[in-house]
Amino acid sequence: MRLLLTGCALFALSLPVMAGPAVAPSSQIETDLLPASLLQISETEAFSRYVFLVDKEQRKLSVFERNGELIQKITEYPADIGKMGGNKTKRDDHKTPEGIYFLQERLSQPKIPFSLYGALAFTTNYPNLFDKRENKTGSGIWLHAIPDSVPLTRGSRGCVVVRNDVIKKLADYIKLGETPILIFDHVNYVSKSEHDKRRQDLSRFVESWRQAWENQDIEKYQTFYDEGFKAPGFNYKSWMSHKKNLKSKYEYIKVHLSQPYIVQHNDQLLVKTLQRYESDKHVDYGVKTIYALKSGDTYKIIREEWAPFSQQEVAAAIARENSMTASSQKTQ
Amino acid sequence: MRLLLTGCALFALSLPVMAGPAVAPSSQIETDLLPASLLQISETEAFSRYVFLVDKEQRKLSVFERNGELIQKITEYPADIGKMGGNKTKRDDHKTPEGIYFLQERLSQPKIPFSLYGALAFTTNYPNLFDKRENKTGSGIWLHAIPDSVPLTRGSRGCVVVRNDVIKKLADYIKLGETPILIFDHVNYVSKSEHDKRRQDLSRFVESWRQAWENQDIEKYQTFYDEGFKAPGFNYKSWMSHKKNLKSKYEYIKVHLSQPYIVQHNDQLLVKTLQRYESDKHVDYGVKTIYALKSGDTYKIIREEWAPFSQQEVAAAIARENSMTASSQKTQ
Repeated sequence: MRLLLTGCALFALSLPVMAGPAVAPSSQIETDLLPASLLQISETEAFSRYVFLVDKEQRKLSVFERNGELIQKITEYPADIGKMGGNKTKRDDHKTPEGIYFLQERLSQPKIPFSLYGALAFTTNYPNLFDKRENKTGSGIWLHAIPDSVPLTRGSRGCVVVRNDVIKKLADYIKLGETPILIFDHVNYVSKSEHDKRRQDLSRFVESWRQAWENQDIEKYQTFYDEGFKAPGFNYKSWMSHKKNLKSKYEYIKVHLSQPYIVQHNDQLLVKTLQRYESDKHVDYGVKTIYALKSGDTYKIIREEWAPFSQQEVAAAIARENSMTASSQKTQ
Repeated sequence: MRLLLTGCALFALSLPVMAGPAVAPSSQIETDLLPASLLQISETEAFSRYVFLVDKEQRKLSVFERNGELIQKITEYPADIGKMGGNKTKRDDHKTPEGIYFLQERLSQPKIPFSLYGALAFTTNYPNLFDKRENKTGSGIWLHAIPDSVPLTRGSRGCVVVRNDVIKKLADYIKLGETPILIFDHVNYVSKSEHDKRRQDLSRFVESWRQAWENQDIEKYQTFYDEGFKAPGFNYKSWMSHKKNLKSKYEYIKVHLSQPYIVQHNDQLLVKTLQRYESDKHVDYGVKTIYALKSGDTYKIIREEWAPFSQQEVAAAIARENSMTASSQKTQ
């Protein structure tokens, strides 16, 4: 952990206001400076309590962990990135994409060769829904290793590359399909108080959206959405008329959200939560992911995804129902 | 089933050689005429024994079933398609894509409104790997229903649309993630003997590929691949050097394939099989899907996908191992 201090200390010095003594003890620096983009790691058990953060400029991959209400950097490693600078836009441009991704599948020998991918590889969901909206192309953006003889400064075809001993350690933090990997050109760090403020602002945004939905206040609800909004099977117009229709059908609805991931990347905002939806006629559980873009001083939702929970997961979710209700109230 | 005879009989009359009397009894027509594109339905239990076939010109959806070695049409229904004619190429072109797809997820009320999607909807994997290679865009191509008051001649935004009573019947044939839905502008039917010939030709193609691979005859093996070949993490060159490398590592490999789906669409060929791969150092099971394009009088593989089997599925696969070996021998 000592090795991490240099980078953190440099950021600390550049902050205008810094609590504590001029040369802060290491523990304080690590607690006080938090990544501006990673505002909240969900406490939902089915999700991942670890988040990977890649700083392309620093060529580093950090692992952050949820620790109660806190976010803590627990480790950091050197990483190689695409040999071309800038944000990936198309197939074979040899650039590392910047954005909010999730680690999907695990690959190892003999399916993939050690000479290209080292001991292990994890696929990502590039292009994500933000990327698809911008018609970005390409695929096969992975987190993987490389033989120890290859320097981590060679430049990849767009993948994030770490050492073999590192990928094996990282594997222990990865829940397939769940662990976020956030890739930034440059990771900004902010003070804990600024981080708290930003997290609270966005928690309020999510909670206002939830309330407008639960109250079936369609007029308010639709202010949260961009007119170019799409969800599978819906555009803005059909989505709103669907909600109006449900309002006429259901005497009430209740929407509970678990404490969500809240992640920003430039003007992008991703919120992922475990959702319990109840009406006088039914109950369902699913994973809700919201993709929003900055619009003036607020955000507008441009995509919404929902995936049902499996039976097993539902049983666990019902067991957690009280704690979910409690945590959704926290954000009010 | 009587309603189906008109279409079939018309096709029968256009065939140059037709066994049996001038007016064949219905059972014979249905047995003798088989869809030229759907050459084999896999007998692998983890897959689907039913295949949906959509004829855009006829505006019909048929269900085919594997019945031992035979393929049989078991039912057929009217279907609506995109309001614009031709093959889908881009987002919002209101065309129904033509190709080889699989039904993925099931959606119902209240997630989707009855007014737009009727009682049930099933998503497809459009754009598939053939489509992505051609940079086709768009998403949300579904098989769904519509309120009974809406005629099936209105034209959709690209989806395949059937009646509410029909989608409920179709749901019984669907294994999510597995059931193929083949969409054609026009479905050609051929005689059983011609169908047998085509299936055998392609089975031989698959078997020759399997043998070249198993024999680690790289020179022959690479003749099956297009130079633009890609698999996750590989291009043609790195794929072949990976195989050469494995050859130097393993004393032997054995490749068993279950009886595959063999489906054609114009110049496209899709082969999907349960694969058991064994070397002197390990054994693994997975679903292998091959995407090939017609090239002269043969096919060249342009994409290859492999997905691991779950532990449960592996156990079942091991139990079926003998029958798999037997069926792979059948194709020799």
